[in-house]
Amino acid sequence: MTQSDIASEDIATLETAPTRFVEGHGIRFAYRDLGPATGTPLVLLQHFSGNIDAWDPAIVNALATDRPVIAFDNAGVGRSTGQTPDNIADMARDAVAFIDLLGLSEVDLLGFSLGGCIAQQIAAEHPKLVRKLILVGTAPKGGEEHLLAVLQHAFSQTDAPDPRLPLFFTSSSASQSAGLAFLKRAKLRQDDRDTDNGTAVTNPQAKALITWCATPDPGHAMLRAIRQPVLVVSGSHDTMLPADNATAMFKELSNAQLVLYPDSGHGALFQHHEMFVSHVRTFLDAQPAAE
Amino acid sequence: MTQSDIASEDIATLETAPTRFVEGHGIRFAYRDLGPATGTPLVLLQHFSGNIDAWDPAIVNALATDRPVIAFDNAGVGRSTGQTPDNIADMARDAVAFIDLLGLSEVDLLGFSLGGCIAQQIAAEHPKLVRKLILVGTAPKGGEEHLLAVLQHAFSQTDAPDPRLPLFFTSSSASQSAGLAFLKRAKLRQDDRDTDNGTAVTNPQAKALITWCATPDPGHAMLRAIRQPVLVVSGSHDTMLPADNATAMFKELSNAQLVLYPDSGHGALFQHHEMFVSHVRTFLDAQPAAE
Repeated sequence: MTQSDIASEDIATLETAPTRFVEGHGIRFAYRDLGPATGTPLVLLQHFSGNIDAWDPAIVNALATDRPVIAFDNAGVGRSTGQTPDNIADMARDAVAFIDLLGLSEVDLLGFSLGGCIAQQIAAEHPKLVRKLILVGTAPKGGEEHLLAVLQHAFSQTDAPDPRLPLFFTSSSASQSAGLAFLKRAKLRQDDRDTDNGTAVTNPQAKALITWCATPDPGHAMLRAIRQPVLVVSGSHDTMLPADNATAMFKELSNAQLVLYPDSGHGALFQHHEMFVSHVRTFLDAQPAAE
Repeated sequence: MTQSDIASEDIATLETAPTRFVEGHGIRFAYRDLGPATGTPLVLLQHFSGNIDAWDPAIVNALATDRPVIAFDNAGVGRSTGQTPDNIADMARDAVAFIDLLGLSEVDLLGFSLGGCIAQQIAAEHPKLVRKLILVGTAPKGGEEHLLAVLQHAFSQTDAPDPRLPLFFTSSSASQSAGLAFLKRAKLRQDDRDTDNGTAVTNPQAKALITWCATPDPGHAMLRAIRQPVLVVSGSHDTMLPADNATAMFKELSNAQLVLYPDSGHGALFQHHEMFVSHVRTFLDAQPAAE
């Protein structure tokens, strides 16, 4: 690696970093890694139907200024090979396989929506692998979801330039305007953009999310099994996975803090990206409480 | 003022700053001001039975590194003269008189517990005076309080070195240990310490808080009148003014964000002081959303 390689890697952003590939467990995973070489890597687990380029560069690049950040496509998604499973447990298994292929023994996880369900499963099953957990716009096992109704509504809004405007933002002018700004950021990258997938990905993903919420979890066994520090984040008016999920998770988790944002929907993290980055950083940098 | 005066003022802390006095409206108010001379001042509104020296130096000094911070005794409290009113409206009137005496035309308010009730009243009545509002461990008008029961329990814990340990912290070892650290910080100042008051202050204060919570507020008129950005903060296990108050305020306020901390009681801000300072700073520094 030359000095020039190192320099260009230092300033790599979600929009400019090359997409890399790593293969094992029968899957060739697409990913981008950003940020410094040292520190606990933050692995991002993406939402229903999203790929690497559906992340907000404003969030990813800001977080990558002081920690390694890794965005990837899980099995079957984007340019990753393999089959998209129709259940959270298998998606968690594939994500752990990816983390393992990178040779990482301890990571922080940021799971958004569907990715938040996967993050819960991984954290519960792999207490040593996961140091801290950030759950955004997601639901506990047995939680409340309105995925299909909200999707149907969003895709009926034929005047919306992108279904994510009605899906992720409220109808207020401030939220819609933040939504347009997010879409602009997310569409900046032209070359080597990730592949958008069709129903071969979204059908099993929808089934996984709906089944996760439809499956009762007596005594909140999954949440109780998570002993890591957790930051739970939601928008005030998330129509897909309502904020009551966040409040419920906060109450059942042994060590969680809760942050809810005003006038925001499922994409609260994109709308309030500066505050979100600050909250994530504060949470990840916090030292364990003295006993 | 000499250079040396300015230098010593620059590094003044809650423990070292001189107590100052300002008189008007029939009251001589005791206060300490810290931090730089420019920026929107943050005025602190104290809890039931507390005076200037009941604030946590770790919070006040950290916030004062980049903004003016003013701690004061409201009428009748500590070394301020006058009568402690038995209702929130009159306490708000006195606090506004104090702010007015300092010649401040725009402030941020941080109200803790009883101080949070006063802060709500001021913000609702003085939309131009209050820029942003931080409500910690408090309740809306008509909210839920268990003041007397919790006080009775705390004062029955005769083995506790300070009633604030059972009042403000949970029974976990982490919370109790954070409580002892807080008490140590709050007791550092020896000279020119504020006066602890007796029942001439606590009786009317208790009546004010209990009446505030016992008075229904149809349609949450008070919260609806608050149009400023609000940061609502609570501990997960606040026994005096439960966290459900915070969730309810978040839902009714037009522009609020909610932060709840793990394994913490009424004194969540003291227990999680580093995170709290970071959250307050992020909130106060945030630019208004683009419309």
